[in-house]
Amino acid sequence: MSNIFSNIPAEMPNEIFEDIISTQTLRIERIVSKGQTSPETGWYDQSENEWVIVLSGFGVIEYANGVKVTLKEGDYLNIKAHEKHRVIETSSDDATVWLAIFY
Amino acid sequence: MSNIFSNIPAEMPNEIFEDIISTQTLRIERIVSKGQTSPETGWYDQSENEWVIVLSGFGVIEYANGVKVTLKEGDYLNIKAHEKHRVIETSSDDATVWLAIFY
Repeated sequence: MSNIFSNIPAEMPNEIFEDIISTQTLRIERIVSKGQTSPETGWYDQSENEWVIVLSGFGVIEYANGVKVTLKEGDYLNIKAHEKHRVIETSSDDATVWLAIFY
Repeated sequence: MSNIFSNIPAEMPNEIFEDIISTQTLRIERIVSKGQTSPETGWYDQSENEWVIVLSGFGVIEYANGVKVTLKEGDYLNIKAHEKHRVIETSSDDATVWLAIFY
């Protein structure tokens, strides 16, 4: 047994990406952010669908069409493959813990 | 966007099982329990692997070999296909919200 909120360093110069489960058809990933955002120039344009939930903190996702969605604790959404998006804000006080399922 | 903690009725005579995502190779399910347990006589013996995390409340899982694991908020584990298990306790005050990924 493990806990999704454990092993979060106090100092986080970079986001942390960790695979929890990885098979040919599925990846469960923990992402921990602390104020980081996507690179200014970059959109995520993924070949897989992504179901993502915020488990602590918050994050703001922007889609290529300009729509912005703020995800707080327990909020989830499904991002289809090749639906361009980026993270434009994450909480800087406490870590934002994301659980992402790529399928 | 939806929230994993929303739409939980105050009265819950039965557990609630809801598919969030369902494809040929993956199922993401929300399970809400409030004091319910697996039937006395029954073990879950699943053909799929299950990755499960408790997001609120707590639950106690027992394996066929007698090992018991208490899952509290944020705790997760991976139950392999055909690893027999059952739920022998869930919180009765507040709902237990489980997120289960079958793959």
